[in-house]
Amino acid sequence: MKHLRIVVVNTIILAGDEDDEALRAQAERARALRIGLLEAGYDIVASLPPDMYLPERIAQLQPDMIIVDAESDARDVLEHIVIATRDERRPIVMFTESDDTESMEAAMAAGVSAYIVAGLQSDRIKPVLQVALARFKREQKLLDELSDTKSKLAERKIIERAKGLLMERQRFSEEQAFQKLRSMAMSKNLKLSEVAQRIIDVEDLLG
Amino acid sequence: MKHLRIVVVNTIILAGDEDDEALRAQAERARALRIGLLEAGYDIVASLPPDMYLPERIAQLQPDMIIVDAESDARDVLEHIVIATRDERRPIVMFTESDDTESMEAAMAAGVSAYIVAGLQSDRIKPVLQVALARFKREQKLLDELSDTKSKLAERKIIERAKGLLMERQRFSEEQAFQKLRSMAMSKNLKLSEVAQRIIDVEDLLG
Repeated sequence: MKHLRIVVVNTIILAGDEDDEALRAQAERARALRIGLLEAGYDIVASLPPDMYLPERIAQLQPDMIIVDAESDARDVLEHIVIATRDERRPIVMFTESDDTESMEAAMAAGVSAYIVAGLQSDRIKPVLQVALARFKREQKLLDELSDTKSKLAERKIIERAKGLLMERQRFSEEQAFQKLRSMAMSKNLKLSEVAQRIIDVEDLLG
Repeated sequence: MKHLRIVVVNTIILAGDEDDEALRAQAERARALRIGLLEAGYDIVASLPPDMYLPERIAQLQPDMIIVDAESDARDVLEHIVIATRDERRPIVMFTESDDTESMEAAMAAGVSAYIVAGLQSDRIKPVLQVALARFKREQKLLDELSDTKSKLAERKIIERAKGLLMERQRFSEEQAFQKLRSMAMSKNLKLSEVAQRIIDVEDLLG
């Protein structure tokens, strides 16, 4: 099995000279997470801050998974991640300190596959990420089915409207109207719904 | 906030006199999980074996969440759970020892909201269950949307077919056919798709 390529998104850039106590603790946790990932055999291809360049970097790197090390203030980070994965969904695992219901639900709605509150022992990282991957696949399947059904419904509306127009204007039977649409689609090498849309467009133009 | 009412489904019934070493370890883990749940403020309303009576018991108890303590052999247990939540989905959290991809994907497909491999410290139980609840809500919303879109598509097919029949047989325009369906639906206090189905049924009968 090839190693999963991971991009870590985190708010803290480790400089190694943190004075602030809380900042140092946070930096320590971030470091522990990365060590855990490496020990579990994952390949960290980049550590990125959650900024406006994130979508572009993720598109370039094409990681198998995005791990967000968000500590407390996750709202902004989530926004950047949502934009970065809008066109191409990817498994997202979120490590955070905030266990309030609102943050969790926001993360779920944003498509987060695993939401881990208050750290994780390093020997549990691997199963958690595996579950996240399996969950991502399942949700992706559901979303694909939903989007497929929605387009079918939309296409059907268009086709039925065009068919109705043909039946009304040309006194075609339903069967004749459908055959007309189909022969137009075949001769022009278009989808049935595309031909139907053109018929509706012409009708709209003519009023 | 009211306490979540939980049903625990587990393969081992604790008798307290387990001789077998592995069985004793398993029983110990099951006990630790239950203590963790109680400490986290959850209300365990029942501990049930995964058998044919499970669906009925769950329907009676109406728990807010089902926790499956499955150890290794989860396949059978999952089957019972799927049957028990087929008519009314509930959040399911699964504790297991099997970390193979196949088991995970089977669990996801069965609608498991959290899949926890190899135990959990008791202080992490609460956030994990909260995340599972948030995830359940999100998936439920997706599934509702999918089922809603599917019925719309199915209903539309039926309505359009009935409309086409009316247009063909009665030389109605599309608008007239639709008005006819609507007035029939109103006078009989039926849904548009139900009237449409009756028209199709009659047509099928008449050949």
